[in-house]
Amino acid sequence: MTVVIYDPTLRDGHHAVRHQLDAEQLREYAQAADTARIPVVEVGHGNGLGASSLQAGPAKLSDEEMLETVRAALPNSKMAAFLLPGWGTTADLRMAVAKGADIVRIGAHCTEADITERHLGWLREQGVEAQGVLMMSHMADPARLAHEAAKLVSYGAGAVGIMDSAGHYLPEDVTERITAIREAAGVPVLFHGHNNLGMAIANSVAAVRAGATIIDACARGFGAGAGNTQLEVLVPVLERLGHPTGIDLYGLLDAADVAGRVLMPAPPTIDSVGVVSGLAGVFSGFKARVLDVARREGVDPRDVFFELGRRQAVAGQEDLIVDVALALAGRGATS
Amino acid sequence: MTVVIYDPTLRDGHHAVRHQLDAEQLREYAQAADTARIPVVEVGHGNGLGASSLQAGPAKLSDEEMLETVRAALPNSKMAAFLLPGWGTTADLRMAVAKGADIVRIGAHCTEADITERHLGWLREQGVEAQGVLMMSHMADPARLAHEAAKLVSYGAGAVGIMDSAGHYLPEDVTERITAIREAAGVPVLFHGHNNLGMAIANSVAAVRAGATIIDACARGFGAGAGNTQLEVLVPVLERLGHPTGIDLYGLLDAADVAGRVLMPAPPTIDSVGVVSGLAGVFSGFKARVLDVARREGVDPRDVFFELGRRQAVAGQEDLIVDVALALAGRGATS
Repeated sequence: MTVVIYDPTLRDGHHAVRHQLDAEQLREYAQAADTARIPVVEVGHGNGLGASSLQAGPAKLSDEEMLETVRAALPNSKMAAFLLPGWGTTADLRMAVAKGADIVRIGAHCTEADITERHLGWLREQGVEAQGVLMMSHMADPARLAHEAAKLVSYGAGAVGIMDSAGHYLPEDVTERITAIREAAGVPVLFHGHNNLGMAIANSVAAVRAGATIIDACARGFGAGAGNTQLEVLVPVLERLGHPTGIDLYGLLDAADVAGRVLMPAPPTIDSVGVVSGLAGVFSGFKARVLDVARREGVDPRDVFFELGRRQAVAGQEDLIVDVALALAGRGATS
Repeated sequence: MTVVIYDPTLRDGHHAVRHQLDAEQLREYAQAADTARIPVVEVGHGNGLGASSLQAGPAKLSDEEMLETVRAALPNSKMAAFLLPGWGTTADLRMAVAKGADIVRIGAHCTEADITERHLGWLREQGVEAQGVLMMSHMADPARLAHEAAKLVSYGAGAVGIMDSAGHYLPEDVTERITAIREAAGVPVLFHGHNNLGMAIANSVAAVRAGATIIDACARGFGAGAGNTQLEVLVPVLERLGHPTGIDLYGLLDAADVAGRVLMPAPPTIDSVGVVSGLAGVFSGFKARVLDVARREGVDPRDVFFELGRRQAVAGQEDLIVDVALALAGRGATS
């Protein structure tokens, strides 16, 4: 079975350098990806269209500049953009399509597919390829994910799937979730892994074996925290297992070398916080705040992560970090 | 099923810093490993007892100094040493046992168990726990590995197993090999992984599921090339899958942080050469020479790696690199 590789090195990977890639960096990597015949290159602020802001961190370039730069560097590959309702609006979608985005993905927390209805609907009306993605997907069981995925399809998504945003999955977890979604969706299914537990490659293989046909992966594993699935490792592993991707191996390795040379000072590694956030199922973006609060309150940051996991904390609930730290220090109201 | 973790951070990991760890570094890490209740800590030159030399690279400390230093830092954990016949001799074994090595592993190329007979026999006579390990094991099929493993047992090995020296395996490869060895050996089976294809954790899990009860892993994945199985990732993954190790998680994460702070400038990552050597099934120690010769002869180093893999090159056959490069350049006698 052929697998279509999506490359969000310049979008999700962008988190690793706080969205500070410049036009020359975008161009160099996109050209290398196009030469390697990587079918889809995703670009933008790490949090997607419209997210560049004081709150999410300003990107070096505007969304328009990023899309224009990458579009011009992709004579063959398709270009994708990403949007999280709340950060981005329909106006951002219109702009992205005007700038040549072939595919737009709309993301939502795993239990909140509802918030994507307007955006997926708008894309469908325009005849633009739209996909729906459920984030922090380990927080919902397979049946719930299948239910939410079916909603995404009903709104207009031409492909649906899950992100392992916290890097919490082991391969069997992926198998059961992708299977449930595939059976409910009736459209191509996608998987996007993170490497906190060293399982990004194995999880992606499990996804393909369960029927996913779109897999995300980033050059050198470029991404927040412990990083994403490493693209130039995944592709030859899939090929060896009988899943062609159409990507040229040497071109791919060249693109990875370009990424290593021009995009990032050092590739992501799995540090202790990466392990703990993956085990706890907590978004690794909490790291700086957790370390800071834990130090101030004299508690173990690892205890904070595990307690945040038990409380099912999600991005936007950073206030919970202080509550948890105070509770662990024996000074707060515990919940 | 309980898994016994062996930690060769200070032996196989030693390759990553060309065997230059000093006594204070050994002591700090060994103490942290002992505190974490890691059951066995292996120490020495990367190539084992007696290998410190101009040819294999001189270690900073003598074998005696390394063993003495680590022994004194391990009030609870056992200490292991490693020996490759040819580099080390029976005199080295005697010294290691006198310095307090509880376990000695004898390694051999996967088809050459014969060369371990004298060393395993000597250890058995002394009543020292001896283990036999087959290296570059992807170069032999399961039946051959089982046959060689049975030889190791007949010579006196109390545990036997395989190293994925080139980082070439995918999980199914490990499953079939460990299964074959387990059925033939009648003693505990061990697995030692490398991460060239991002599968070190998944391969180690596959080994355990196939019946291996001894797994090697290094703090922060410290090791040559793309590195070994990352210890502080493996242990909680095994625990989550129902395989207790007896290791304290926070102590383990602390030990990994010590390793990151005192042993290595940066943990290993999977670079393009790491991917290619893993795919080709070639020892990553060939890297510097391959890059050098390929540049001189104007050929693609990746082609050199793949051709070395086809010719089944093993360590010691570095001369083959020039032959291959000349052949690829159209100037040598091809084989």
